[in-house]
Amino acid sequence: MKKVYLDNTSTTAILPEVRDAMLPFLGEYFGNPSCIHEWGDAPREALEVAREQAAKLIGGASEEIVFTGSGTESNNFAIKGLAMANQKKGKHIVVSAIEHFSVLNSCKTLEKMGFKYTTVPVDKFGTVNSEDVRKAIREDTILVSIMHANNEVGTIQPIKEIGKITKEKGIILHTDAVATAGTIPVDVKDLGVDALSLAANMFYGPKGVGALWLKRGVRILPLLDGGVQEGGRRAGTENVAGIVGLGKAAEIALSQMPARIAKVSVLRDRLLNNLPEKVSHVIITGDSVKRLPGHASFCVEFIEGESMLMLLNSQGVAVTSGSACTSRALLASHVLLAMGLPHEIAQSSLLFGLSIQNTLEDVDYVLEVMPPIVERLRQMSPLYAKFLKQKKGG
Amino acid sequence: MKKVYLDNTSTTAILPEVRDAMLPFLGEYFGNPSCIHEWGDAPREALEVAREQAAKLIGGASEEIVFTGSGTESNNFAIKGLAMANQKKGKHIVVSAIEHFSVLNSCKTLEKMGFKYTTVPVDKFGTVNSEDVRKAIREDTILVSIMHANNEVGTIQPIKEIGKITKEKGIILHTDAVATAGTIPVDVKDLGVDALSLAANMFYGPKGVGALWLKRGVRILPLLDGGVQEGGRRAGTENVAGIVGLGKAAEIALSQMPARIAKVSVLRDRLLNNLPEKVSHVIITGDSVKRLPGHASFCVEFIEGESMLMLLNSQGVAVTSGSACTSRALLASHVLLAMGLPHEIAQSSLLFGLSIQNTLEDVDYVLEVMPPIVERLRQMSPLYAKFLKQKKGG
Repeated sequence: MKKVYLDNTSTTAILPEVRDAMLPFLGEYFGNPSCIHEWGDAPREALEVAREQAAKLIGGASEEIVFTGSGTESNNFAIKGLAMANQKKGKHIVVSAIEHFSVLNSCKTLEKMGFKYTTVPVDKFGTVNSEDVRKAIREDTILVSIMHANNEVGTIQPIKEIGKITKEKGIILHTDAVATAGTIPVDVKDLGVDALSLAANMFYGPKGVGALWLKRGVRILPLLDGGVQEGGRRAGTENVAGIVGLGKAAEIALSQMPARIAKVSVLRDRLLNNLPEKVSHVIITGDSVKRLPGHASFCVEFIEGESMLMLLNSQGVAVTSGSACTSRALLASHVLLAMGLPHEIAQSSLLFGLSIQNTLEDVDYVLEVMPPIVERLRQMSPLYAKFLKQKKGG
Repeated sequence: MKKVYLDNTSTTAILPEVRDAMLPFLGEYFGNPSCIHEWGDAPREALEVAREQAAKLIGGASEEIVFTGSGTESNNFAIKGLAMANQKKGKHIVVSAIEHFSVLNSCKTLEKMGFKYTTVPVDKFGTVNSEDVRKAIREDTILVSIMHANNEVGTIQPIKEIGKITKEKGIILHTDAVATAGTIPVDVKDLGVDALSLAANMFYGPKGVGALWLKRGVRILPLLDGGVQEGGRRAGTENVAGIVGLGKAAEIALSQMPARIAKVSVLRDRLLNNLPEKVSHVIITGDSVKRLPGHASFCVEFIEGESMLMLLNSQGVAVTSGSACTSRALLASHVLLAMGLPHEIAQSSLLFGLSIQNTLEDVDYVLEVMPPIVERLRQMSPLYAKFLKQKKGG
């Protein structure tokens, strides 16, 4: 059977060049980078090369990069660390309703410690209105965190506009760029942000490694206390091999970005244009223009998303219904609900994440196997039966 | 030139078998373990195998293992997470003066949030007296954290005795077993602990991965909020390859433990017995009996430890003067100071961490190159000149 991996929003595959760059640090160069003797030299130098590669990807300076264990850790570190370090100025945070749970749940944890947060809404395309952010800002607001692009519907947010507002008001702006860094051009200066999260496995690097870019001079408290690694901002023996992989993946992503975008956009558009023709009652979610190049998301009405995943999997196709971080919780997506979709439609979500390894044949295969799967599921769907009855009646 | 790596307390080298076990998860099995489709299957199953391997190493149940990004993260998670989850019962913590900074600095962070902590002293061998722990426990004490063995002087602590006291008083006991798990037998039931930290790179596994064992029923709050990974206790896409490496390293460590202990003890004893004979004014630090099998630590009076490291490195020998996590901070060890050593002696510390890859020839090489290095440094030492003058005068 044909195997088609279209779940690149959950994780991409590691590039062989990235893996090859990592291997010496799982072998000969096993030393601890903190060590003063020569066994520490190669790992320490490798960290600094990776730091430059990561910084260059997002237009920052290498000393502004703190390596972490995941995008989730970067977001926790940013939200909690920035809030704790700046609480004398105030204890209020502004986020959007469609942030990743690593941001939203960090806010909930801070709430238990006396912080408050305001959630700004999104429109039906999943876009945050910068004026809503302005309105949500209070006298005691110290931090705004809005994601660069949403991982579930692919909508790219007006961070630059928001950055002008936070700059004007002297408030720290963090952006969760896990879905964008390494995928589309990201420039921290152009965006006007103070902190930015990224994760290697979103751009063909290894899982278990991320970074927080933190603008020089912005105060933060560590999430991980202990030794003096990462300039005292993130203690713990470094995942050298993983960090080297992140750096290499960043370097390749930067050099190949235009070609990658061109390639996956074609595949995405083929899905976006053809799936609604092949299958009835399909709603494209997200924005048609301000959307990630490899991101095609839909709701397939009258169907439960999980069942669709299972049947697609039985045809060799890997997709997801939303965020991998919560896929096993089987809840309707908070992102789709925030966009105003009714609960039963939100539960029919389907998300294709296209990668540079995918082909037109992969997309065409999906377009071929989808209609009978949908048909089969709808025949068993009480919701669809109800719809047909109402239609007949009406 | 001969190359002798004797800095295995900073990190051990990854075993080839461990690396080989990791490689498929940096290649073919790149999927996200949270995914429902088949690309998630192999990574998810691999996590569960590793969880069993890790649990078995320490006599726990696999569902009691939470994987983390380092021993430091495990300690932060334990101290902060256990304190936050149990603060209704009280806000007081007991630790020893020789804990790793990931424990001590976590306590300092909690102090800013209204917690208090008491530091129990150690004797001149670096041993915590369990009665001192009993005395330090107050009505509002909720957590005791004492390391299983100290990483700088190798002293093994009476955790079992302390466990009886905490059990009697209904207080949670955490032990930082980063220096012992995978090195000497560790059994959480026998020790009577409620939480235990370990790190893979201490037993020939990869850097950047650790675990917290948490006894069933013990409440903890996550350090990393977000998705539902690790049973909701540690969010973030898992470092699958690293976790697989931890598991494999744990499995091998358990099966080879007696042979490993026998081997490195011989090397350790050769150093402990011969260095003080070859070099004058050498003090063995730590306990002569209750000490880690591969751990030989000294103070070499009238010498600055860092200079000694540099000269040993110039002879191809890697050692450390203390904890890798703080080696670049160039401070006298808080452990040696707590053991009552004067500041100038504490600054002359030298620590040999022996591994299964070391040989008698390695040790003999060190015993050969050490005396002239010490001689050379002492000739330049104002402290030594002063000592000689006093000796002459007296």
